[in-house]
Amino acid sequence: MHETFLRQAIGLAAENVASGEGGPYGAVVVKNNRVITASANKVTSALDPTAHAEILAIRAACKELNDYQLTGCILYTSCEPCPMCLGAIYWSRLERVYFACNRFDAATANFDDSFIYDEIAIPPQNRKIPMLQIALPDATAPFDIWNRKIDRLLY
Amino acid sequence: MHETFLRQAIGLAAENVASGEGGPYGAVVVKNNRVITASANKVTSALDPTAHAEILAIRAACKELNDYQLTGCILYTSCEPCPMCLGAIYWSRLERVYFACNRFDAATANFDDSFIYDEIAIPPQNRKIPMLQIALPDATAPFDIWNRKIDRLLY
Repeated sequence: MHETFLRQAIGLAAENVASGEGGPYGAVVVKNNRVITASANKVTSALDPTAHAEILAIRAACKELNDYQLTGCILYTSCEPCPMCLGAIYWSRLERVYFACNRFDAATANFDDSFIYDEIAIPPQNRKIPMLQIALPDATAPFDIWNRKIDRLLY
Repeated sequence: MHETFLRQAIGLAAENVASGEGGPYGAVVVKNNRVITASANKVTSALDPTAHAEILAIRAACKELNDYQLTGCILYTSCEPCPMCLGAIYWSRLERVYFACNRFDAATANFDDSFIYDEIAIPPQNRKIPMLQIALPDATAPFDIWNRKIDRLLY
């Protein structure tokens, strides 16, 4: 069963290269053994650097299920999720992920997945894209307001 | 100058809690000292777990600049980017990031940023959301096709 869904993700990835719509990646979201959504990478055709297959499949599945979380859903993806997609997997509360290739396979095709994983371990200010904290007196005000808000919708 | 843009991001975050459209986060994309886009978190109102302030600001800036990369742009965000947004920052080739709060401030409001950073360091199969590789003979076929494609559009 897992192999069937994973093959579907791989098929999407291969077709996507042929169509020229984006990178060689595909992903499928499944709930109760039923495919909810299936997407391929659309970064270059959608002019959207976040349009990875997993992100698009997660966003579409949320729309399909009318929810901002995917509890009980499984993601099948042609390649190990990059840190962006990994984050999206946690925020969407997916149950589990199956992948075929890994970040090192992606590196053989010059994709940055492995590089980005390496960057995360480096202190923010020393990264190739420097991320610098500036201390401001009112910086935590939004969190303070949030914590006091009684009807806040948790996610 | 940095403080001005950062304050704008913090202001967006605070207003967003009051409006009830999402979490206490705001982000601004700047190019040549001009604000290109400014966004707040819309996860719960857009039913989209990827609708973090940074992701929305990046996606909107790409649309504005008609490009899938943001070379020469700076991101100002009310809080240190989570791993999802960090990934998006690398994929969009932003030049630099400034943030006000950090992942530990976010944790005081029960957001998972710090937890997700911790999960990344754990082997995929042992994470709270298990990520399992299944070896398939044709797994790398999409990368092989990609590498052979002469007119592939790199990103």
